[in-house]
Amino acid sequence: MPDPLITLTTDFGDASPYVASVKGVILTVNPTARLIDLTHRVPPQGLRHAAYFLASAVPCFPPGTLHVVVVDPGVGSERALLYVEVGGQRLLVPDNGCWTSLDDGTARAIRLEDRRYWRPSVSATFHGRDILGPVAGHLSLGLDPQALGPPVSDWVRLPMPQPRQDDQGIAGEVIFVDEFGNLISNIIAKGLERPDTVTVGRRAFRRKFRWARTYTDATPGSLVVLASSNGLVEVAVVQGNAARRLKAGVGTPLLLGYERRV
Amino acid sequence: MPDPLITLTTDFGDASPYVASVKGVILTVNPTARLIDLTHRVPPQGLRHAAYFLASAVPCFPPGTLHVVVVDPGVGSERALLYVEVGGQRLLVPDNGCWTSLDDGTARAIRLEDRRYWRPSVSATFHGRDILGPVAGHLSLGLDPQALGPPVSDWVRLPMPQPRQDDQGIAGEVIFVDEFGNLISNIIAKGLERPDTVTVGRRAFRRKFRWARTYTDATPGSLVVLASSNGLVEVAVVQGNAARRLKAGVGTPLLLGYERRV
Amino acid sequence: MPDPLITLTTDFGDASPYVASVKGVILTVNPTARLIDLTHRVPPQGLRHAAYFLASAVPCFPPGTLHVVVVDPGVGSERALLYVEVGGQRLLVPDNGCWTSLDDGTARAIRLEDRRYWRPSVSATFHGRDILGPVAGHLSLGLDPQALGPPVSDWVRLPMPQPRQDDQGIAGEVIFVDEFGNLISNIIAKGLERPDTVTVGRRAFRRKFRWARTYTDATPGSLVVLASSNGLVEVAVVQGNAARRLKAGVGTPLLLGYERRV
Repeated sequence: MPDPLITLTTDFGDASPYVASVKGVILTVNPTARLIDLTHRVPPQGLRHAAYFLASAVPCFPPGTLHVVVVDPGVGSERALLYVEVGGQRLLVPDNGCWTSLDDGTARAIRLEDRRYWRPSVSATFHGRDILGPVAGHLSLGLDPQALGPPVSDWVRLPMPQPRQDDQGIAGEVIFVDEFGNLISNIIAKGLERPDTVTVGRRAFRRKFRWARTYTDATPGSLVVLASSNGLVEVAVVQGNAARRLKAGVGTPLLLGYERRV
Repeated sequence: MPDPLITLTTDFGDASPYVASVKGVILTVNPTARLIDLTHRVPPQGLRHAAYFLASAVPCFPPGTLHVVVVDPGVGSERALLYVEVGGQRLLVPDNGCWTSLDDGTARAIRLEDRRYWRPSVSATFHGRDILGPVAGHLSLGLDPQALGPPVSDWVRLPMPQPRQDDQGIAGEVIFVDEFGNLISNIIAKGLERPDTVTVGRRAFRRKFRWARTYTDATPGSLVVLASSNGLVEVAVVQGNAARRLKAGVGTPLLLGYERRV
Repeated sequence: MPDPLITLTTDFGDASPYVASVKGVILTVNPTARLIDLTHRVPPQGLRHAAYFLASAVPCFPPGTLHVVVVDPGVGSERALLYVEVGGQRLLVPDNGCWTSLDDGTARAIRLEDRRYWRPSVSATFHGRDILGPVAGHLSLGLDPQALGPPVSDWVRLPMPQPRQDDQGIAGEVIFVDEFGNLISNIIAKGLERPDTVTVGRRAFRRKFRWARTYTDATPGSLVVLASSNGLVEVAVVQGNAARRLKAGVGTPLLLGYERRV
């Protein structure tokens, strides 16, 4: 049986010692754990970013993988820390909605309460190192999650913006901007026909965009609208940066307009 | 026998879920694979950067290491994906010349065609996750590369700028700038004597540079010209940033001038 | 017995092939080594940053972990390279004080001299790849450190700024800024009472700060002064960036003022 896999997703950045500390604590509990960095560049306190990130990445992992998520603006407050099983994956998360995008109605959760699996001294500001890290180590050694605390049936859910549809079109918004500047929206691409207009924020495009299958369907510099690798409507500039060109970001409205056919 | 090593080199950046997705897919196929991040900061679509990077890093790895490279501006087009064996290393790459710097004339390549080793559903925009990742997993399990598709004998070669030499000196260019701001050129350092002038872009230095062995051969702030750790002529500012100071970057001409000795 | 752990801490950044090269060299010597990235974002030649980073992160790791540190502005000069045992941890470091913060008076050090454990050809500018990497590989295979060279009893110590206390208060300074913009000082928090004034650089706060236990003890945007996760006095802005707001950085004075109680 391969050594247990533990992934790490944080908003700590790469230059501070926080990520390294969490890694050390996990390996102190279980020196055979295999650690996989997912990202440490969630924007500070970026719960929406984390939600989209986890929805994309977590389902790609083998069942039973343990994902430690430390995006925790409420550290030290009364917010709970949770162990969650959902979609065959296992999560250790603050109860702040960062995993809402994975919550398909079948999730089971446990509130971390038994301090035997924590560091002996718990700081007020770094529960990633003092609680989630050691708990991850113990789980990876085979600890029954029921030992961690009581089951809970309620948890924080992050409001996820839903697109609205009427007879003039579909109104959604940008929910993620990747490092190419591609704008990923909350509109599901499947089944959509080419819209007559695409409006990003205040900029409307009637003919000057390509309804494409892939980035290479248009010339460099062109605006393309296509299905993202997650099946969502994405606005991109071929070999360019749509976010900069359109001055768009997370929350920018995206409208797909359809004219009435008589 | 140690678990198989798979390295990852991409232009995905650190904040997007793309790298994490590729890792998850590989580990789903082979949970014992050991993943090594080389970089995820190749500039978007930066084939030249990738070429220099791979030429420096890949030969340091143990023979048989599998290197997955996802710098793929042509994703979704008709460009091929290749499995390559060269210099004892194994590569999975888009056929866009990103590995030209490793191509020593002995390479053998296979075009990925057998969809049995791909994800069941292949997106148009993310072949790193849907093709290269799972193929890497299968290869790391011992799959014979010949199962992946037919051998090919032709592939894209990236034009690599060559320095020119005449009786006045050597004219090369900057091919890589590292994060210290050091300018690495395409001029081989071995056997060179100290030039009389060094010209970076439009800035000519006659006496005000040091022909050095190491950064510490001159005082902080001094301009030094030395052999890089790869044996190429490098221009650096001691404990400073030559790229910023000389306003130079990839493609900036570098001239080493030699006056005629009568 | 689990495969040996080797951590990596450098100032190489993420885009250059230097980190990848060191990884490859270690794995060439010992393909079973498990590599853990701590950070590659120490600021260039940032010895103080490295010292704080290592003091925070290294003690979290299991005893016997080998930590390779390549922050080496003196590469190629006569500065030594050291193998160090301290606090149960093992280090491979340039002798430039980067590990001073871990030096508790019990350290034992060996100067790397035996070239049999180095790369056959050693460059003048990249000892991380040519010396520290292969030595790490050999140590992880079980090599007796005494084979590396002679013991030494003297090494470079980085001057660490100490806070001063008088009857008006405590005068320290910022020694680290994390990626949330939190200002971490050299003043030990334990036992301190709430000061009457907090002065960061030239900005004095009499009432407008919260002496807090955690970030959530005050409203977003508030200035809080609290014990960092390492037990040092930290100045933060709740869900904001104290470094930007107070224009403060490493070296900025921090004064905790106590008025005389009659």
